[in-house]
Amino acid sequence: MFNERMQRRGEERSVIREIFEYGNARKREIGAENVFDFSLGNPSVSAPDCVQREIARLTGTMSAGKMHGYTSAAGAPEVREAVAAYIRSAFGTPMSAELVYMTCGAAASLAITLHALCESGDEFVVITPCFPEYKVFIEQAGGKVVCAQTGPDFHLDLNALDRAVGKRTKAVIVNSPNNPTGVVYGESELNGLAGLLRRKSEEKGSPVFLIADEPYRELVYGVAVPYLPNLYANTVVCYSFSKSLSLAGERIGYIAVSPACAGAQSLFAAVSGAGRSLGYVCAPVLFQRVCAKCLGQSSDVSAYRENRDLLCGGLTSFGFQCVPPDGAFYLFLKSPEPDAKAFCERAKRYELLLVPSDSFGVEGYVRISYCVAKETIARALPAFEKLSREYGL
Amino acid sequence: MFNERMQRRGEERSVIREIFEYGNARKREIGAENVFDFSLGNPSVSAPDCVQREIARLTGTMSAGKMHGYTSAAGAPEVREAVAAYIRSAFGTPMSAELVYMTCGAAASLAITLHALCESGDEFVVITPCFPEYKVFIEQAGGKVVCAQTGPDFHLDLNALDRAVGKRTKAVIVNSPNNPTGVVYGESELNGLAGLLRRKSEEKGSPVFLIADEPYRELVYGVAVPYLPNLYANTVVCYSFSKSLSLAGERIGYIAVSPACAGAQSLFAAVSGAGRSLGYVCAPVLFQRVCAKCLGQSSDVSAYRENRDLLCGGLTSFGFQCVPPDGAFYLFLKSPEPDAKAFCERAKRYELLLVPSDSFGVEGYVRISYCVAKETIARALPAFEKLSREYGL
Repeated sequence: MFNERMQRRGEERSVIREIFEYGNARKREIGAENVFDFSLGNPSVSAPDCVQREIARLTGTMSAGKMHGYTSAAGAPEVREAVAAYIRSAFGTPMSAELVYMTCGAAASLAITLHALCESGDEFVVITPCFPEYKVFIEQAGGKVVCAQTGPDFHLDLNALDRAVGKRTKAVIVNSPNNPTGVVYGESELNGLAGLLRRKSEEKGSPVFLIADEPYRELVYGVAVPYLPNLYANTVVCYSFSKSLSLAGERIGYIAVSPACAGAQSLFAAVSGAGRSLGYVCAPVLFQRVCAKCLGQSSDVSAYRENRDLLCGGLTSFGFQCVPPDGAFYLFLKSPEPDAKAFCERAKRYELLLVPSDSFGVEGYVRISYCVAKETIARALPAFEKLSREYGL
Repeated sequence: MFNERMQRRGEERSVIREIFEYGNARKREIGAENVFDFSLGNPSVSAPDCVQREIARLTGTMSAGKMHGYTSAAGAPEVREAVAAYIRSAFGTPMSAELVYMTCGAAASLAITLHALCESGDEFVVITPCFPEYKVFIEQAGGKVVCAQTGPDFHLDLNALDRAVGKRTKAVIVNSPNNPTGVVYGESELNGLAGLLRRKSEEKGSPVFLIADEPYRELVYGVAVPYLPNLYANTVVCYSFSKSLSLAGERIGYIAVSPACAGAQSLFAAVSGAGRSLGYVCAPVLFQRVCAKCLGQSSDVSAYRENRDLLCGGLTSFGFQCVPPDGAFYLFLKSPEPDAKAFCERAKRYELLLVPSDSFGVEGYVRISYCVAKETIARALPAFEKLSREYGL
């Protein structure tokens, strides 16, 4: 009676959100302090001061009539100009306000970009392990998902990418700092990817695009995050302020089409058409303006770094194995039994809520979102220790 | 190279937004006070005090960490409960929080609902003249648009609806108070529609749904707006706070699936799946909470009423013809020449920006959005008078 695919997607929900909802229910049952919910990438560190200050300034100085009205579909002109100016100065790369499209966050940035790019028969390459919702957005846009697995250290495997990218590939999605591994790809491996994509574009006779999914750009622990448009012309940046400014629930981000992109103007038109078609009228306007004044700022990354150190140190001391993350706030832990789902179920008995890696496109790992209070990690460690003993680690 | 449909939709843009953008450019050229922009339904009356008060209260009392984080995909539980409680008390109709899905405004409400409902081969009936973007949303969801024209007074024509609704009809969209005519459908004509849909559902062997698109519910001038779920079981309400609370740019609204709907739980799952698939993670959270405290309130409707009276009075005195609107803030004026586009071009010479009716699905009219400063109308009237003389009215 209803759209079957939509109903199925609504019933299955995202695996992550499923655990998050379970955690909320469990917290009501036994008290929030007794549930160690590592499921969701919901920033635990407060938005930086500039956010509350800008909200107060705007509500204090703009008339309520002007402040909350529609902007142009692509965003308020002064906001788009501010984003473009920031990109130019921060990354030393050309960018024009006319190619900046403000969005309702990263998911909207991706959904819109994929709808803009996808023609019948197109394939999109994702680098696994990857964010599970890529599959949903790609399929909704009419594309086919092709996976290229990373190496054992979760860095790019150019051979795997060489096999995955073919005549039907419209774009490759790159997410660095990475969800779920916390890995940041270095300039050298990204140059390797850029070279591969240039060669593949030539073979194909039309560009293979790069979608740079960058919500974690600012959340890094002392490593550089190369700006992809500087390495590869046909790049579309999908950005979100959700994580950098701890505004996940406010739904605000942008799409920046590199001016060096083949057919940049037409691609931007397709982005606008996709935003329109999917029901995005404009990005939430108060936060458009707030974010325009907080560009380049971020929440207190040192808190995430402390969490990482505490968690990695503890878990490895208990015998668990992981690659220490360079950025984002996720730890990808090797499951001590091959079936990660079984491991997660066992962890649940200690009120540890982890996400099995299957939905990220690889088996045998779990994702731990450590964007929680440091105290939660400290209190969870004994539970992890008991869990490790069950496995005789 | 890109998705052709998206590119076309981006290039054509919405006719209304096209004129709005022209108006913005023109204002920069000759000064805002010299352009009479009646194109966009951007509320001119300030958000009611409760909005700014709630923003200040929330930013003052909630921690920045808690305030801006993700909510569940369907919205914060307390917000959904507040909306359900409001619906129960304001309309005397059953509603449960579990069937309320918070959205990024009316366009998102519609896009999500259409994606949830639409199966291959489905038709959706729109009542013309109607909001032009219905076509975009229906086609994007994979449906086919079927038009049922209203009578000359822009009220429902049950014969036209009887012809339009058939075996393939999945839903009929009803928008009252109406954009672009300002007409409010009465209980008797809506009961006629409900009876027709019950008969058609029986013939078809499955329900024909009613989508109640209600962004203008509170903006009425002394007439009652019947609540459709009280008249017809299989109703989904698509609501937005954009117009009632003058928050058009903040993108906040909701979908309420009537508990009496056939398969209400499954339909809600499909709504959730559609929201997820289209990249809506959750509705903007600050405004979820703000709106939950402002339910049933509205901006100062008397200002719109004064505008209507001034505009209708002036235009009819110059010899123009229109049906005086009962609600919303649109006036649907008969074009004094058959080609409404030509009339709009002529009006442009007097800096009067009107929207030709063709995109609303009927010919020979223009839409005047009178959600502008009263002074703008007062200053535009002499221009309208000159225009009327050109036509010898």
